[in-house]
Amino acid sequence: MKIACILETDFEDSEYTQPAEAFSQAGHEVTVIGLEAGKELKGKKNATPVTVEKAFPDVQPDQFDALFIPGGSSPDKLRAHPEPVQFTKAFFDARKPVFAICHGPQLFLTAGTFRDHKMTAWKTVQVDLKLAGSDVVDQEVVVDRNLVTSRQPSDIPAFNRAALELLKQPVATS
Amino acid sequence: MKIACILETDFEDSEYTQPAEAFSQAGHEVTVIGLEAGKELKGKKNATPVTVEKAFPDVQPDQFDALFIPGGSSPDKLRAHPEPVQFTKAFFDARKPVFAICHGPQLFLTAGTFRDHKMTAWKTVQVDLKLAGSDVVDQEVVVDRNLVTSRQPSDIPAFNRAALELLKQPVATS
Repeated sequence: MKIACILETDFEDSEYTQPAEAFSQAGHEVTVIGLEAGKELKGKKNATPVTVEKAFPDVQPDQFDALFIPGGSSPDKLRAHPEPVQFTKAFFDARKPVFAICHGPQLFLTAGTFRDHKMTAWKTVQVDLKLAGSDVVDQEVVVDRNLVTSRQPSDIPAFNRAALELLKQPVATS
Repeated sequence: MKIACILETDFEDSEYTQPAEAFSQAGHEVTVIGLEAGKELKGKKNATPVTVEKAFPDVQPDQFDALFIPGGSSPDKLRAHPEPVQFTKAFFDARKPVFAICHGPQLFLTAGTFRDHKMTAWKTVQVDLKLAGSDVVDQEVVVDRNLVTSRQPSDIPAFNRAALELLKQPVATS
């Protein structure tokens, strides 16, 4: 499966590296999409360097089977721009798998895709989602149809297992 | 006037330094309150070092006349803990001046103090506030009774002027 990972600087290092490694080891292909192709992004904790492979104008959502949104400060930086927001919405519209951890669901608030799925998120973002009317629970991983969400780095093993399981299932084409 | 500034690491440098300098020059006293007394906090851009003077358990809201919340990643880090959230709520309850810029109003979402005032915030946080039912506008500064809010570093001059003006007025005692 082709997985689009949308990323900006100050991402939570392990929330990118560990799922990306698990996806690759399972035979999936992860493409890092960002605001500027070729830009080197650094993680907020270990300063893991990741190079943006494609900029948003260079890709279409229908080129990918799933969307992966790591946390940290990356999601809030991405949602300040229209392209990542529209890109995220397209995966919900197509009912394709979306994997978001920690601050990742902040993109759902801006994209307006927070209402139809049960989900979790980083504890501060859980508050925003609840206030917006989202169905939020506080557990290590929540799977609701095409959506897999988790709260924090300690949830990564459960997040990876749920995401990989979903990728084994046929993708809905709406 | 005694101004409590609540701060955590990765604050937006200019949103702390410039208002703090303006408040001090006008004769007000700014105390930096954080999660750990003596901890050195760094700004996210210029890595401005600021030392936490008092930890939350060491102060009471009634020791201060006003609250100042700089932006960056600091407000989201603070609102993950109960003390800064309760501290913020106390200033609203007492109708004392509150000055918040950029991501500062994220604390209002967690404290439940986002409903009774017209406000602005960083553009991504404006979305969260609107979804929560807050009265949000997109302008450089919004003054609504005891609350002064701004969006970003370029708004700082207007933010400072409005905050200093409010500090000239008698503080409501509810």
